This record gives sequence, structure tokens and C-alpha cells, in this order.
Amino acid sequence: MTDLNGAQALIRSLVASGVDTCFSNPGTSEMHFVAALDSVPEMRGVLGLFEGVATGAADGHARMTGRPAATLLHLGPGLGNGLANLHNARKGHVPVVNIVGDHATYHKQYDAQLESDIETVARNVSPWIRRSSATADVGRDAAEAVAAAAGPPGQVATLILPADVSWSAGGIVAGSAGPPRPTPPDADRVDAVAKALRSGEPVGLLLGGTALRERGLVAASRVANASGARLLAETFPTRLERGAGLPPIDRIAYLAEFAAMQLEGIRHLVVVDAKAPVSFFAYPGKASYLVPEGCEVHVLAAPYADAPGALEALADVIGAAADGATRQPAERPVPPTGDLTAQAVAQAVGALLPEGAIVSDEGNTSSLFAPGLTAGAPRHDWLTLTGGAIGQGMPVATGAAVACPDRRVVDLQADGSALYTIQSLWTQAREGLDVVTIVFNNRSYAVLNMELDRVGAEAPGRKAKDLLDLSRPDIDFVAVSRGLGVPATQATTADELSDQLARALAEPGPTLIEAMVPPIM
Amino acid sequence: MTDLNGAQALIRSLVASGVDTCFSNPGTSEMHFVAALDSVPEMRGVLGLFEGVATGAADGHARMTGRPAATLLHLGPGLGNGLANLHNARKGHVPVVNIVGDHATYHKQYDAQLESDIETVARNVSPWIRRSSATADVGRDAAEAVAAAAGPPGQVATLILPADVSWSAGGIVAGSAGPPRPTPPDADRVDAVAKALRSGEPVGLLLGGTALRERGLVAASRVANASGARLLAETFPTRLERGAGLPPIDRIAYLAEFAAMQLEGIRHLVVVDAKAPVSFFAYPGKASYLVPEGCEVHVLAAPYADAPGALEALADVIGAAADGATRQPAERPVPPTGDLTAQAVAQAVGALLPEGAIVSDEGNTSSLFAPGLTAGAPRHDWLTLTGGAIGQGMPVATGAAVACPDRRVVDLQADGSALYTIQSLWTQAREGLDVVTIVFNNRSYAVLNMELDRVGAEAPGRKAKDLLDLSRPDIDFVAVSRGLGVPATQATTADELSDQLARALAEPGPTLIEAMVPPIM
Repeated sequence: MTDLNGAQALIRSLVASGVDTCFSNPGTSEMHFVAALDSVPEMRGVLGLFEGVATGAADGHARMTGRPAATLLHLGPGLGNGLANLHNARKGHVPVVNIVGDHATYHKQYDAQLESDIETVARNVSPWIRRSSATADVGRDAAEAVAAAAGPPGQVATLILPADVSWSAGGIVAGSAGPPRPTPPDADRVDAVAKALRSGEPVGLLLGGTALRERGLVAASRVANASGARLLAETFPTRLERGAGLPPIDRIAYLAEFAAMQLEGIRHLVVVDAKAPVSFFAYPGKASYLVPEGCEVHVLAAPYADAPGALEALADVIGAAADGATRQPAERPVPPTGDLTAQAVAQAVGALLPEGAIVSDEGNTSSLFAPGLTAGAPRHDWLTLTGGAIGQGMPVATGAAVACPDRRVVDLQADGSALYTIQSLWTQAREGLDVVTIVFNNRSYAVLNMELDRVGAEAPGRKAKDLLDLSRPDIDFVAVSRGLGVPATQATTADELSDQLARALAEPGPTLIEAMVPPIM
Repeated sequence: MTDLNGAQALIRSLVASGVDTCFSNPGTSEMHFVAALDSVPEMRGVLGLFEGVATGAADGHARMTGRPAATLLHLGPGLGNGLANLHNARKGHVPVVNIVGDHATYHKQYDAQLESDIETVARNVSPWIRRSSATADVGRDAAEAVAAAAGPPGQVATLILPADVSWSAGGIVAGSAGPPRPTPPDADRVDAVAKALRSGEPVGLLLGGTALRERGLVAASRVANASGARLLAETFPTRLERGAGLPPIDRIAYLAEFAAMQLEGIRHLVVVDAKAPVSFFAYPGKASYLVPEGCEVHVLAAPYADAPGALEALADVIGAAADGATRQPAERPVPPTGDLTAQAVAQAVGALLPEGAIVSDEGNTSSLFAPGLTAGAPRHDWLTLTGGAIGQGMPVATGAAVACPDRRVVDLQADGSALYTIQSLWTQAREGLDVVTIVFNNRSYAVLNMELDRVGAEAPGRKAKDLLDLSRPDIDFVAVSRGLGVPATQATTADELSDQLARALAEPGPTLIEAMVPPIM
């Protein structure tokens, strides 16, 4: 039997499998994991004050590294608190390895207070679930969890670690088999799409997931330019590479009415690591499925396949010029002046966004203008709310900043959504992360005011309006941010916002700017 | 077909079944429920800025009213965010009715962004789960959900409400069958316990759940005084009535070592709506099951049974005097002076707690001295962390204050735990609730520093210690509280704490006091 305990073997196996960061919110059942961290210098432990911060940060970290990060969570309730952001990771095909501590194997029979059915909680988000039942297996289980999470496609994998399996001796270190290998392009699919492109009928190319990085975008742009196909991106990309020098692409609109206009007339919709578009919610009397009547859907690459490779193969098959991609020219708006609006904030971001920035976008309605006004900014990454479960923007920004210490992170954050995982700020301060959070404080769940009307609900009365309102009391995000250790300022004019953003981007460490804006409608 | 839509029928049926408060965190799929609130004046909607606030507040409300409150949650992720406090409600046998909105029935097939398996998430906490599939059924489903939640024993019931079932016409109002009826005392069980009491061997009476209210306590104290049995309460009661004029009772200690001393020598342990005691966690080389070797366990009343009635029957069978209960004399400590410690805070609470107060206790290690120093305070209720999932104290305090507008709520709150559901403060401000929150700011997860040692982990290094530490940056709870709309002060001496607590208790509305205390060990 080895001298390693289960926790030590687990951490070494994660490291041997390429996982070097663990976003943690531990309790008693995870104390041996915590104690073992100091014996493995390659593993970084990052504390979150709430599990939703840890799971969202693991998501953000993996989006930027392409490798899974780990979370450390405390039994079923800890996993439950992290569930919403794991849902977002699941929908974005982002790899995450959850380590969930549990009671000692022999203790479970007593139904102690924190006893619950962890597997059932995990099932909603995690296709791969395993409970390590012996210390000698933990290392191998960890390596397999990493491999399962890595995919392709990336997914959530959950390893349940009983306390006695963790603390007992006899751990064995294992490593996983290396980076994931996507399925090569399918020549028949490529030919079928090429045929559609040659048909003369209108074609749309809908890119998602791994197709939205430089290689995929360049190949898709070559195809579009050679064939006249319309180029579109999914509404909520996991990671979209964009800005000056990269092929520009419009995302399908959140509002089904606008999406229908973008897709109008298309007879062939080619999906590349993306889904045929559907409405985010159902609305009385409105269509859920947004593909036009009579339009044929072609799958060029599924999420497990090599999407950039398939697009390059397609470009070559149709004879697109190697240098035939459109490149976004460098162009920025001037910094805004005058009244502060969501549009002015977007203009300031467009004017000031530094080269290599990472934008975490959970601005919801307030982000409407941000993609347009940053299109020609220096090259950057755009991370969005992949699963629709709000409270993801701040944790994702946090994890992305841990992954990329040389890059600036800008978090465009709606006020209502910010309150779900506001504890992220503390982790940003603890780790000294270069994150600028801009909170759009419009004192309402603005999207719900819009949706209340769109679902055709009766004229709202006072009680209904109260449930969509974030005033009485007004939230002072500057105070909350300072209380959690992050310096903060409030902007009430566009000039103030521009000044504060420029200053925040010039200084190390996290900052929050509370932008006092009216709702956009 | 009726003119009522599903949402209107649902809300009216909840009201007809005795549910008059809905702790809400809605999204688009719940907009018709929100819109319908104004048409049913009897239903109060209370907004929480995070689902864990809503579920914990529903728990606190039900503990004080004895009837379920409702929650309104947004699809699977919303339920996920509320899961930890539903776990606590489940462990405390507290009735809660979750209304979880879902996509329209015909929209689910498209696997839209927020699509997930809601039933699976609910299963962990909610024995009763139903999906309303037709508008005409919603009212009956709601009434049955309330009846299922009410028990006995109280439990979590979850009704999933598809958006189109909610917005369509044809709703029918239903009402549930009235208050729950526990099973009458079992004469054989009463006789068996009476025999044990007469055996001359040492007997322990372990009360939990519904036995910890005045009727049960008085009957149990009569039994103990007549028979010499040792009287004990479970470690984490859902609601313990205590203070001057009520029979005093010691709770079984959290630390197994101390619990073993309390139980030492007992040959018959009589459990009354309680479980035979087990250790909260397992520790290497220590027992999980705390009942002494050779001790027989007798179940006088299970959670579905009439526990006070069973205790009264037992008292009568053994011939205990009708006025034979011990009554706690009124006695208070003087307000503390000098250094501020967790003990000084407890002393101040003991000195100042008003008649009829409700104490929500999530002070964790810092609460160690609070029960002793408040034992002779005017009559009050003590609500604890029933399921061990932290982040419950502030929501429970919030819900209890909504339920009892004429009573003062004092929330004893550990700093680490406070950060899980700190958004509760905003709801307290919005609703003008008379809650005084005392945050014990010892800048650490103090319980974990203790547990790290108790689980026998190797000497912790810097990385391990960092994960248990809440400094760098220090959290400024005064700033956070003010940012969320609740006036706050910081106390650094016992005198300041006493003054601030006295002032806070004299003024309407919520207040937070940040008590700067050292860890208790």
C-alpha cells in the first residue's frame, strides 16, 4: 500500500491529467483534500465564498484554457448551490470536473444532517458521475473524470469522494490520455453542404461552439464570400473570437422576431457545432422553432466533431480563395459624452477595450449595443450566458482572469443578475485579478418588464410590478463592492464612465464601476 | 371553460388551501403567475434577489405559522439555486410548496437554453413532485401540493407549472382538506416507555421536531421530574420554544465527544419526533452512532405522530403530577462590558432579548454561548440550521419576520455562512422587517479550522489555511449591508455591541451589527 492518502493521489492525478486549478468551497468532508493541497505545488486552490462562484469560475477558466478546471464542493447542498452555473457549462459544452465530498462510506447509513442523494443532484448537469469506493481507485477515477469532461464535446463530470476514501492510505496516481481528439470532418457531409451551396438557393451558415474561434471563422468567411452564403453565429456563444483582423459575424438575435428577419428566405441552414435556432422561451401564438418553413437543415459538424476542420474542408471543396476571408478593419468609436445610457457604456467599452481583452457579457438588455460598438476594437474574446441561468457573468470573468493573468477582463453585468453571485468580487480581490466589472444599474429586472408584455400577460398591477423592480431600496453597488474588497466608483454621466473605465483599465487588480443607466426601453 | 387562466386558478387554490405568502424569484416562464398576483389580494408576493433567499424564507415562514408558504422559482436552475435551503427544510420536516415554472409543453422538445430535467433536481429534496399538464388540473394540483407539504410530517412539495398551462384559460379553483392530522398516540408505545421508566435503569428522553413546543416540553418535563429521566433536545431543532416560564432543556452537543458525555450511562433512549443521535460528520477512529453500547432505543412518537399527545399520555400513565413541570425562572445576565467576544455577544442578547423574540441561530462556533446566556430571557423561539447547509440563517430570519410582524427577530449569523444568502438583507429592507442581524466577524471559517484538526489531517500549510480564511481582503459587512439597503454599524467592544443592540431593538425595520470577535478557539 502506498503512503499517499486518497486526497493526495486525487490531486496528483488531476495535475497529471492537466488540471491545475481547483475552485473551492470546502467543508469538513473535504478537509483532507484541503490539507493535501500544500503537498502538490502544481495545484492552485482558489477560494469562492459561494459554490456558484466556484462552478462559474471553473467554466470561465476552461473557456480560456481549453482544459477542464476542478471544483471542490461540499456534499449535495454544495453541489446544489453550484448547479445553475454547471447548467450553463453543460449548455456551452464546457469541461468541468466536480470533486464533491461526501460522508465516510460507513457514515451514510445514519442519515446525518448533511446526508442527501448527491448522484441525483448531479444527474441534471453531469453525464459522467462516479463515486470512488476505494482509495486505490481514486487516482484512476480522477483521470477518467478529466478525460470524460474534456470530451469532445466538453461536459461536466462529477466525482464523489467519500471522506474515508479521501483520508485512507493507499492512493495511486494516474494520468489521463492527453488532449481530446474531435472526430475528423465527414466527407459526405461536406459534399452535401457543397451541393447546397452550388444550388443557387439561399444558404445560411450557422456557427456555434468550437467554430467561433479564428480558424473556424476564417474558413467560414471564405465559404460565405465564395458562395454568397449568409454567415451567422449562435445567440449565446461559449467563446467568440472577434475584433480587428478577425472575420466579423452577427449573432442570431435573442428576440425571435428579429431572429426571424435574420433567417428569412434561407432554404438551406448549415449548422456547425450549433443547434437549429429555437426561441429562448415560448410565447403565446408565436413560433418556437425559428428555422423558416421549407428550409432544410444540414449538420456540417456535430459538437463532438472537428468544426474548424470541416469548414476548411468545405472551403477547399468549393474552391474558396485561401485569402478570401473578410477581415474586420480596426475602428473604434470615440469615448462618449453627455447622458449615461447603456449605449454610452458600450461606446466607452468600444473606445477603450485593450488588445487581448476578455469580455464576460451578462449585461442582458443593457448589452444590446455592446457587440456593435466593439466590433472593430482590438482583437478580444466574448464570453456569454450559454445556458440562460443568470449569475454567471461575474464568476466566468473571475475564472477567465485566473486563467489569463496577462489579459484584461471586462465584465458587462446586469444589476439583477449581479446579485446572484456577487461574492465573486471577493475572490477577484483575494487573487488580485485584473477584472473591471461594469454594473448596469437600471434598478429593475428590465428583461422581465419586456417579457411580461411579450408573453401577453394582463396589464400588470402594483404587486406584479414590485416583483420586477429593484428599487425600494435602491442597491448601492459601490458600497457592496467595497464591502467585498473591490474598489468601486459610480458613474452618472458618460464622461465619468469613460474616465473611470480608462483609469480602471490602467491599474492592476479588480475594480467595479456602477453605471447608472435607464432601462433601454 | 372558465375565464380564469391557470396562474389565477393556481394562486386562488393556494389561498383556498391556506397559503397566503409566496417568496418569489420569477423569470419569463412565471410572468403569468406574476401578472395574476394583483387579481388575488389575499396572496402576498415577496421578492428575493436569489432563490436561496426565497426557499429559506419559506422555511422560516412555515416554522412560525405551522402552514406552508409557497416559493416561485424559475425552471431547473432556479430550483437548483434554492436547493440547499430546501434540503434544510426537508431535514427539519418543514412544509414548503415550490411552484417551479417551466417552458410551455410544446416548447420542451426544442431543448432551449434553459431546458433541464426539473423533476430530477427536485427529487433530492421533495418527496411530492407533480407536473401540471392541463389548465383544468392546476387548481387541484395546487391543493394537493399544499396537503402533501402540510403532512404530517411537513415536507417539501414541488409543482411544476408549464408556461402554457399557466397562461391558458380554463382554470378551476380547488382547496385542500384542512390542517394536517397527526397520528394519535400509540398506547403500546406509551406502555413500553412507561415500563422502561419504571425499570430503575437510566432513561433519556430525546425530544425533537414538534415535541419542542410548549405542550411537549411541559409533558416531557413532568415525565422527567416524576421518573428521573434525563431530558435532552436534538442538536438542531426546527423550532424550540424556550425562556422564562417554559421547561428548560439542553440540546445534544454538536461535538460527538460532548454528546457522548450527555448520553453516558443511559440504558433506554426514548426518541420523540427525533432520531437516535449520530455524529454530524465521521472522524477517523471515532464512533458515528452516539447511542451508548447496550442502550435500547424506544420510539415514543415518529415524525407523523402526535408527539405532545404521546408525551401527555406517558405523563398520565406514569402518574406525573399535572403541575410537575419545571419552569425556567426569569433571569438575565447584565449587559457585557470590555472586550468583544462571541460570549459577550451572547450575554448582550441574553440581557436585551425582548418578550416574544424569534432567534434565528446560524452563529456556528460563535453561537456556543448563546443558549446558556439566553435561557432565562423572556419567552422566545429558537430556530436552527436543521440540515447543516449553511446560508439558511438570514433567509429563515426573513421569512419568520414576514410571518410574525409583531415580533422581533434576532439573527445570530456566522460571517462565512452570511455570504451565501446575503441578499436576504435587501428583502428585509424592501418589506420593512424587524430583524436585527448580528454578524460574528471572526474573519475565518472557524468551524473548519477546528474540523481540520479533528479529522486528523496533516499539519495544514499556507494553501490549506488560505481556503479557511476570510481575510485578504477583510469583508466589511457594514458596507455590504448598507449597499443592500439595511442600516448597519460595527461594534468593536462589548459596550458598543450592547448599545447598538439596544438601539436596533428599539427601532422599526432591519438593522445589521457587525460584531468584530476573535474565533472562540
